[in-house]
Amino acid sequence: MKNGIENGYYHEITPAGFGIAIKAGKVLFSKQSDFQKVEIFETESSLGRVLTLDDLMMTTEGDEYHYHEMIAHIPMMNHKCPESVLVIGGGDGGTVREVLKHKTVKRVVLCEIDGMVIDACKKYLPTISCGLSDPKVEILVQDAIEYIKDKKNEFDIVLIDSTDPMGPGEGLFTEEFYTNVKNSLKEGGIVAAQSESPFVNKEEIRKMYNLLKKVFPVCSTYTSNIPTYPGGYWAWAFCSETVQPLSYIDEDRCAEITKTCKIYNKDYHLARFALPNYLKELL
Amino acid sequence: MKNGIENGYYHEITPAGFGIAIKAGKVLFSKQSDFQKVEIFETESSLGRVLTLDDLMMTTEGDEYHYHEMIAHIPMMNHKCPESVLVIGGGDGGTVREVLKHKTVKRVVLCEIDGMVIDACKKYLPTISCGLSDPKVEILVQDAIEYIKDKKNEFDIVLIDSTDPMGPGEGLFTEEFYTNVKNSLKEGGIVAAQSESPFVNKEEIRKMYNLLKKVFPVCSTYTSNIPTYPGGYWAWAFCSETVQPLSYIDEDRCAEITKTCKIYNKDYHLARFALPNYLKELL
Repeated sequence: MKNGIENGYYHEITPAGFGIAIKAGKVLFSKQSDFQKVEIFETESSLGRVLTLDDLMMTTEGDEYHYHEMIAHIPMMNHKCPESVLVIGGGDGGTVREVLKHKTVKRVVLCEIDGMVIDACKKYLPTISCGLSDPKVEILVQDAIEYIKDKKNEFDIVLIDSTDPMGPGEGLFTEEFYTNVKNSLKEGGIVAAQSESPFVNKEEIRKMYNLLKKVFPVCSTYTSNIPTYPGGYWAWAFCSETVQPLSYIDEDRCAEITKTCKIYNKDYHLARFALPNYLKELL
Repeated sequence: MKNGIENGYYHEITPAGFGIAIKAGKVLFSKQSDFQKVEIFETESSLGRVLTLDDLMMTTEGDEYHYHEMIAHIPMMNHKCPESVLVIGGGDGGTVREVLKHKTVKRVVLCEIDGMVIDACKKYLPTISCGLSDPKVEILVQDAIEYIKDKKNEFDIVLIDSTDPMGPGEGLFTEEFYTNVKNSLKEGGIVAAQSESPFVNKEEIRKMYNLLKKVFPVCSTYTSNIPTYPGGYWAWAFCSETVQPLSYIDEDRCAEITKTCKIYNKDYHLARFALPNYLKELL
């Protein structure tokens, strides 16, 4: 079975032979960009509208908060005063929206290679992309590999909100790139990077963490549920030169931001670094 | 799209219009019992063989430990000396296998209404059903609603490893049944019950916990990932007259059993009761 919509259902089947199926409604947007196929379709379910890239699930209106709250708030809340934030990828805007909830933030740079993703999400996924029009946000339609090369001591937080390590996202999973990301951090800076499914992408996870551990003295993993990704379970890397995960949580920001979240709260944050045995062995 | 196998793929699509798809191989067993359709099929993937009842996913060889370790070890490790255990449903035997890992256990009663499930799993899913031949295990092919009626002060642990609250499992989600389960507990006894998907089955969860809270002074919820259930996220109820969750963990048993588990460890146990905001609001 091919990934994508056929006979009224969207499928994403992993190479392992299992995955997700969603009853698809009207296709609102479907175009080939310079980098990938960008598609947004409606569903009749609580998932609402769905964004796929090259027929792989990126996000849905109905469950996007599972991903965006986790990639943003776990590192942000562990930083004493995150003022400047770089989001790499993340053209749908969901990560930027969550970052902007932190009142310390003065500047957010979104570096997304594919302008078509940004434009389509602004038009068709307004509840996700709403933060992109905030005056604190600089949008760069640019390859993050080039952008990050000469950045030194510039960001408190870098969030790598990339696609999978094949296709346009491939260069975002290299030692050189991670080294440049590390150099772009200010003192006490933290990186969070999406790091695939522990259940589905075991080989990809192993390779990625081997590289990250070469570059970052601190490299931990946290996980949470994503209902519409095959396997329903996702991992993110928490990396830093000096900051250990759970070494600090800003209590005031935490209490305030929890009120705006569907997932995130302090207990849930503290629980995220407890990993199943099979994932600990993998890392 | 109908649930079940068609054109080489098994689908389970929830009423909300999304779910899972698995490339199906040979069907090893498919029969209508007095209660439900029992089916076991092969896959070419790491999921191995798959058990479905009435075309709904029950378990797979490749991810069954996600469910069975959680329903068994969270309550068992919270009990100082679990000797007698009742498993309701659970005809595949996976829960019994995990229960038997606790060296304190002297007697396990499996009360499964459908003998065909037990027989098919013994034949086709030996890595899951292996515990059923242990001499400590009494297998009763009987309706648990009847069995539990006159039981008083008999079990340290009761595990409700049922199907969904429709079909043969329906009577296992009533106030009368929960009251009888409570009466069957010894002092310090604990019940764990599968309680559906927080993301997919919001109404069912709300109803179930409203009933449980009427019956049990202690009623908490814990969650974990199940890769092959739609939404990938599952909840279990932890109920007791007197025992709070996380009030005790048997350190020695915990260390020993962790060595045999793919998921379970102490940190993972401690993290399980931290719930996302949307689930806390639901309960």
